[in-house]
Amino acid sequence: MGRTLTYPKRSANTVNRYKHRATYDLGAIHSIINSTQVLHVSFNPGPEDPFPAIIPMIGQMGSFDYPSADINEPLDCYLHGYVSSRIMNLARESQGQGLPICVAASKVDGLILSLTPNSHSYNYRSAILHGYANVVTDEAEKLWAMELITNSVLPDRWNHTRVPPDRAEMSSTVILRVRVVDGSGKIRDGGVSDEKKDYSNEEVTNRVWTGVVPVWETFGAPIPSSDNKVAEVPDYITGFAASKNDQNRGYAHEAVGVTLPKEEQH
Amino acid sequence: MGRTLTYPKRSANTVNRYKHRATYDLGAIHSIINSTQVLHVSFNPGPEDPFPAIIPMIGQMGSFDYPSADINEPLDCYLHGYVSSRIMNLARESQGQGLPICVAASKVDGLILSLTPNSHSYNYRSAILHGYANVVTDEAEKLWAMELITNSVLPDRWNHTRVPPDRAEMSSTVILRVRVVDGSGKIRDGGVSDEKKDYSNEEVTNRVWTGVVPVWETFGAPIPSSDNKVAEVPDYITGFAASKNDQNRGYAHEAVGVTLPKEEQH
Repeated sequence: MGRTLTYPKRSANTVNRYKHRATYDLGAIHSIINSTQVLHVSFNPGPEDPFPAIIPMIGQMGSFDYPSADINEPLDCYLHGYVSSRIMNLARESQGQGLPICVAASKVDGLILSLTPNSHSYNYRSAILHGYANVVTDEAEKLWAMELITNSVLPDRWNHTRVPPDRAEMSSTVILRVRVVDGSGKIRDGGVSDEKKDYSNEEVTNRVWTGVVPVWETFGAPIPSSDNKVAEVPDYITGFAASKNDQNRGYAHEAVGVTLPKEEQH
Repeated sequence: MGRTLTYPKRSANTVNRYKHRATYDLGAIHSIINSTQVLHVSFNPGPEDPFPAIIPMIGQMGSFDYPSADINEPLDCYLHGYVSSRIMNLARESQGQGLPICVAASKVDGLILSLTPNSHSYNYRSAILHGYANVVTDEAEKLWAMELITNSVLPDRWNHTRVPPDRAEMSSTVILRVRVVDGSGKIRDGGVSDEKKDYSNEEVTNRVWTGVVPVWETFGAPIPSSDNKVAEVPDYITGFAASKNDQNRGYAHEAVGVTLPKEEQH
């Protein structure tokens, strides 16, 4: 049913190594970006500096013009930052389409321990986007993006805080909108993969343990602040932590073909 | 005793926002790089492409010339990749000091849930290095770096695999050595921080739960491959997973001032 939208393959985003692990599907790429807590964003500071810069940022895919657009459809990438940071100044001063940036997200799902160092690997999911960043000036779009980004850290958190932001808060926060030009993703799952010369060598196979160590991000029990006045940790927080833990732990195991029994998921 | 070496502050690596969170100490920065499973490496593909590139890579700090150098001393950053990848080709073709790159590492240690979206934050550790990358051509240095990087994924794994790499393996793998020019780190720990206008507002404090959700990377029970012939998971693997889990979980809690009781650490 329906079609799968893919990003155009250009030389800048085409995967040349382990091509079977590559994806250009919007949905797969957007999902990796959206489920990554810290994005790495690269830009060039200027002609006098030979080094590209990388900064960690929080961001999320979304469409202000078509808010009902789903994860498989064309979306912009919204990034959150401070008003006078270098990337914001560069985006403000940029000519033409905006500041050319690269957004990257990667997560490790497991250590692949094979017979030889060369066949060692990770199970992982990674994605990059190239695009032009501009500062959002429309107040309604900015507020919408602030809510989108806050809720990406913890679903429904926005409505459970003191909102809307006041004038000072609105002016100290800047939102970048990245119009995406291309993107690609790479996903490695499965188990160990060795070469015949090694798995047919008994001296080696009798000595070297091979397998996968699953890796995932865990959310611990919420720790109330000393000033907190709400007696119980609300369900939207505990529920989020529990379901994320199930999902993360489940994915790291499913990537190796292991389905966790229900009781072990909690 | 002794002195703390710091990276020089240049405009490219100087932290201007939340300066009290910044560090230029070699030891702090190198530790963040070394304990991060995937580094994000940025470079410029060439004059025809406006976008910087970011690729996920595995790497480690080390000194081939002074192997006894500790984490607080000047070290190079060694990165591991495939022979014909774009970054390796660019490094090989680079003129002068090498290919200018940026190496970044970030990890999230907790969600800071404050009264207002603006005061939300993460506990986190992040670091960047700027430097010139060159392909390692000396065979002894290359082999040394391959062992360094393999053991960074799992301590002592190198000696428990089929080594040394054969000729084909040596030529398909390329190691980049990055001579570091500058670096900086940023560490946020602690709890919630709100403004008086909000924490003195009872309507807000009675309604909004505030606190920290600790976050850490968990290593699961090792899953043997179908071809594995070693009956028991070796101690160096189970011991690594257990001690990393303790360390990661412990750090995420200590960042909020919570010391876990011994029995809860396992």
